[in-house]
Amino acid sequence: MTEPTLHRIVVAGTGRVAWNLCKAFVEKGLPIHEVVGRDLSRTMALAEFAKTRAVTGIDKMTREADFYILAVSDDAIATVAKQMPPTDGLVVHTSGMTGDKVLKEYFGRSGVFYPLQTFSVGHYPDFEQIPILVQADSENDLAYLSQLAAKLSNCVMRSNDHQRQTLHLAAVFVNNFGNALFDMAAQILEKEQLPLSLLEPLILETASKISRQTPSQAQSGPARRNDYGTIHQHLNILKEYPQLEPVYQMFTEYIRKKYLS
Amino acid sequence: MTEPTLHRIVVAGTGRVAWNLCKAFVEKGLPIHEVVGRDLSRTMALAEFAKTRAVTGIDKMTREADFYILAVSDDAIATVAKQMPPTDGLVVHTSGMTGDKVLKEYFGRSGVFYPLQTFSVGHYPDFEQIPILVQADSENDLAYLSQLAAKLSNCVMRSNDHQRQTLHLAAVFVNNFGNALFDMAAQILEKEQLPLSLLEPLILETASKISRQTPSQAQSGPARRNDYGTIHQHLNILKEYPQLEPVYQMFTEYIRKKYLS
Repeated sequence: MTEPTLHRIVVAGTGRVAWNLCKAFVEKGLPIHEVVGRDLSRTMALAEFAKTRAVTGIDKMTREADFYILAVSDDAIATVAKQMPPTDGLVVHTSGMTGDKVLKEYFGRSGVFYPLQTFSVGHYPDFEQIPILVQADSENDLAYLSQLAAKLSNCVMRSNDHQRQTLHLAAVFVNNFGNALFDMAAQILEKEQLPLSLLEPLILETASKISRQTPSQAQSGPARRNDYGTIHQHLNILKEYPQLEPVYQMFTEYIRKKYLS
Repeated sequence: MTEPTLHRIVVAGTGRVAWNLCKAFVEKGLPIHEVVGRDLSRTMALAEFAKTRAVTGIDKMTREADFYILAVSDDAIATVAKQMPPTDGLVVHTSGMTGDKVLKEYFGRSGVFYPLQTFSVGHYPDFEQIPILVQADSENDLAYLSQLAAKLSNCVMRSNDHQRQTLHLAAVFVNNFGNALFDMAAQILEKEQLPLSLLEPLILETASKISRQTPSQAQSGPARRNDYGTIHQHLNILKEYPQLEPVYQMFTEYIRKKYLS
């Protein structure tokens, strides 16, 4: 009797995190009890994908579930929490930045369930590789979250707000800023009518290197070897891209300083 | 009779590019005629790897080969060229930045053979995926280089100095600067005793996204959505990492400006 009750899971939200979580749960044989959203067609689309029923209207959500995942944007977490019916279930959000306090105001049992990845709708990275950070007040709930997370992922970590937020900040550096570098490279190539796809093998190799070497060991390039001739040539080309010159200067300075013997 | 003569290949250099090129040639059934280096043990190690003979001393290099690849650092290209015996063969360098003029001073037939990738000794990315940029003066030599490159790679491009140098600059953004971002993330995590491996799935996913979306479409994060609350929290954490704060500010400004509606 206990197993099915243990996993009556509700997912609130119809965005990228909700889709990826639904897929991961269903694939691991953990059915979703209901999917809750504001927009009818979006909620129905996700419900169909997750083979479950759609509920539109936060206040119409069941109060009988064991586990509620608020896979909504940071701004919406408190709003959704406020509109939810009271429940004895465990309520978590999936944010990298929002503190664990927000949900405590509204629920007896609350926590955090943060999958550290960038998600898209329609593309599903292997969930088993994705670190999941869990937080909860009671040891019981923490154990429950850890077990549930371990069914989805091989990498589950108990964290606190500060650790999670620090990881989120580091994630912004590699993902948001890393992507911005790709965008800058695309701009540079665009003027020469060269496609960014020429850099794809290099970008993938750069990313895969961190499993073999520390970034500090892997660092190469003109700034690393104090190759002023090349730096000078690069800055010459960059005269055509004034918005990118300060970026080049900043990284060159950063790398030079770091490896100054 | 012509086939074997056509591909009497000499590789000068014993660094990462030389090892990767030797491996690619040998794997494609294009034997290396000899490997030439300064250091005896390094040259012998590469010659053994490439199943060919080792020649130490640039001046002792055969003059009878058809194709000479100077897989040496930018600084060394002219020096090696000067010391080489005269030859009727085609001599190329493998640099992203050095102009095609350098070798013209010394040889009747010269060019460029630039594989666009970051190489390590002991790790060999799939050469078929690596773009090779080729340059030569005569149409004959260009056709020869293109054919040879096409045996190693599915992506061969005829270029000129400016295109190649522009690609090299863009490569510095995604590889050298991208790796520097990984290093910054590692610093952030180190203080919390968290391993960079937690970010590995995110880093790989970020890299693989460019095959599905432009970086501009893929851009996400607090700067992209003008989420000042999160930016403020991040800057708060960054007070402990004063060297990284300007990097955060710069990217945040760059992304905000770019997507300003």
